[in-house]
Amino acid sequence: MPEYTGYVGKSLEFLKTNNVAVGSSVKIQTDLIYPGIIMPRYEHADENHVVIKLNSGYNVGLEIDQIKKIEKLPTNEKIIEEQPRLEKNSSLPKILLLSTGGTIASKVDYRTGAVTPILTADELNSSVPELAKMANIDTEMLFAEYSENITPDHWLQISKKLEEFSSSDYKGIIIAHGTDTMHYTSSFLSFALAGYPIPIAIVGSQRSSDRASSDAAINLIGATQFLVESKTNGVFVIMHHDESDETVACHFGTRVRKNHTSKRNAFQTIGDDPAYIIINDKILQNQKDEYFKKKEFKPKTNLDTKVALVKYHPGYDPNLLEKIIEMGYRAIIFEGTGLGHIGNTIYDVVKKANEKGIFLGMTSQCIDGRVRMTVYESGRDLLDLGIIPLENMIPEVALVKAMWALGNSKDIEGVKELMLENIASEMSH
Amino acid sequence: MPEYTGYVGKSLEFLKTNNVAVGSSVKIQTDLIYPGIIMPRYEHADENHVVIKLNSGYNVGLEIDQIKKIEKLPTNEKIIEEQPRLEKNSSLPKILLLSTGGTIASKVDYRTGAVTPILTADELNSSVPELAKMANIDTEMLFAEYSENITPDHWLQISKKLEEFSSSDYKGIIIAHGTDTMHYTSSFLSFALAGYPIPIAIVGSQRSSDRASSDAAINLIGATQFLVESKTNGVFVIMHHDESDETVACHFGTRVRKNHTSKRNAFQTIGDDPAYIIINDKILQNQKDEYFKKKEFKPKTNLDTKVALVKYHPGYDPNLLEKIIEMGYRAIIFEGTGLGHIGNTIYDVVKKANEKGIFLGMTSQCIDGRVRMTVYESGRDLLDLGIIPLENMIPEVALVKAMWALGNSKDIEGVKELMLENIASEMSH
Repeated sequence: MPEYTGYVGKSLEFLKTNNVAVGSSVKIQTDLIYPGIIMPRYEHADENHVVIKLNSGYNVGLEIDQIKKIEKLPTNEKIIEEQPRLEKNSSLPKILLLSTGGTIASKVDYRTGAVTPILTADELNSSVPELAKMANIDTEMLFAEYSENITPDHWLQISKKLEEFSSSDYKGIIIAHGTDTMHYTSSFLSFALAGYPIPIAIVGSQRSSDRASSDAAINLIGATQFLVESKTNGVFVIMHHDESDETVACHFGTRVRKNHTSKRNAFQTIGDDPAYIIINDKILQNQKDEYFKKKEFKPKTNLDTKVALVKYHPGYDPNLLEKIIEMGYRAIIFEGTGLGHIGNTIYDVVKKANEKGIFLGMTSQCIDGRVRMTVYESGRDLLDLGIIPLENMIPEVALVKAMWALGNSKDIEGVKELMLENIASEMSH
Repeated sequence: MPEYTGYVGKSLEFLKTNNVAVGSSVKIQTDLIYPGIIMPRYEHADENHVVIKLNSGYNVGLEIDQIKKIEKLPTNEKIIEEQPRLEKNSSLPKILLLSTGGTIASKVDYRTGAVTPILTADELNSSVPELAKMANIDTEMLFAEYSENITPDHWLQISKKLEEFSSSDYKGIIIAHGTDTMHYTSSFLSFALAGYPIPIAIVGSQRSSDRASSDAAINLIGATQFLVESKTNGVFVIMHHDESDETVACHFGTRVRKNHTSKRNAFQTIGDDPAYIIINDKILQNQKDEYFKKKEFKPKTNLDTKVALVKYHPGYDPNLLEKIIEMGYRAIIFEGTGLGHIGNTIYDVVKKANEKGIFLGMTSQCIDGRVRMTVYESGRDLLDLGIIPLENMIPEVALVKAMWALGNSKDIEGVKELMLENIASEMSH
């Protein structure tokens, strides 16, 4: 019994006509030749694609209308890997793609249904053939981690690697990254590499590339177009913008957040429109100011992770804050309520933290909007306790910035100064 | 030199014609008589109102077209307090207004510019005369706290008070509350008083009532209308909906969040439209299901605050989680990344927490969307570690629910059961 799981209409017809089914070894020719095994389709499979698993383990969806030839191979024949090779065109600009892992570099394990990271940057590049028409893309795999497993050590690895290319002839650099923590990474790079001369685009995918609804290709294509055409530098997160298949948003790396667990348009610039919208090959600009406030590129790639993020809530236990002090934390970023408040039950411990020389910064768990601690008398009390209002910095960004500021300052005064300096558009007006 | 700070156009004309200015003691007659001192105007003052400070310290804005008479009093004459009294109309439904503090019950201290809580529920009621035409409102002041100082003890005070009125002849109950933590309070009341027979409306104001742009009156009027007309029960947060002055939103108390530090339309239902929109006196319904999933009212008003909210981020220190375990916490609500992840550097400690019988629940720091821990192999690892995915419960709501579940369960199995039971629409489909 041939199996056609998930195939409908035109694609089902295509398989039957060619006497192949799920599990068949085939060689499919479009503009390139793809050898692989036909895979089942999942989710809202359309009828226009057939999905094959390449030897690399990576799955690619091929549009049926683009298929010039399909050849069935004997099932037990070892498929000879013919990695599609792209001719370089020396008239095109050069882009570097660094791969770090994540859904954009993942495949579904069809046994368990779970998604695992596997794709190398080279595979990623060759699987989106449009890219080769826009730029000559060199690829390098730094590591392959789910982004929830990315640590500050990985940030350092990425920033060291980027430092190497700061005066290269690349027009821009793409970092393929898992979406969960890409805004933490983009923040760190923004501070550590302030003034970096060429644009950096951090790109992910909310759905893995072998799913019908994947946004991997459109995000990569949008990022490449942005790097090739834009005249700006800066660190941007480039992700799907809305439910349509044509729009990609380019967010400031210090003003962006993942605001939905699963939607393709999960990423949003907080409190503003994205810096750029890439729609139907056009780049619409919203960016008003330069991203880096300092023009000179002088990397500061140290950090100290002794920063606690404390989200205040009714019932928050002052003893927990006490423990944080005892554990030698050097900075505390509060996610206060509303305009930047914490309850008076923890005032005493906060006072103690201040006396110990711990940096105390205030952000808001509202996420959007500016903290303002002069409106209510309780806010004024907090200022007296030494808490520094961090304007409209997003809590996650303030956390990363504090790690970076601790690593690159001699003393708490230096930390305060860096925290209040607008380095990479982390504060807006 | 008479001072007219902030008065323009018609209102300025009005003051000049009547030979009064900022600081003048006056008695103004509209439908009621208001004795007080003319106050300067701030922010985007319109030209249609004059603001006077009553002896109570509360400021009220009076529409010039409604003023029948203005009488200037000798500056040094002690103004005799004539609290405007409202005649009760026995044909109107009865509403109870409980005041707990917050901006809605605040006034600006014109010396420091800061806002302090002062207003009693009775003053609040009489200062919005429209209310008397809609309902007979009884008022009671429970306490006067900024909402960042509200603790679980206050939740208990409120719920005990509400229990007293569960079989009263009130059509509904308004709780005037500071906005910072009103969604925490609404969550607790939703769980503790599941099945409460009459609707509860928690109402606040993003701008204090004596500011031109205050939303106090419109929120109170909207809430009163809702309680009088609606046929539902449930716990709702009723706040300004958009930038217009006509629209009030009525949010499910377990699906709402303050998402902006200062905008009047800061409150949003997460992942859905508000349950009701009150616009131009019409109530538009979006609520599809009953709020309380259990119909029977059986109050469970215990709680245990030994719940830690842990927002995972790159660089999160496993030792901090270790301390939380050592401190005897009985539940941990993770704000994981993306679909509900935490980094593998803290797996060992999580395992330990699970072995100690600590309840481990997963929500997402994305805020919107459902956690889904079967998509990636790392999510599957977390399930193996005993972490319970909490669907699309908002982290703050999961925290409050865990405090409540701990207080009302015999053991961890009981906690798990309550956490996964949809009690007051805290999970949606």
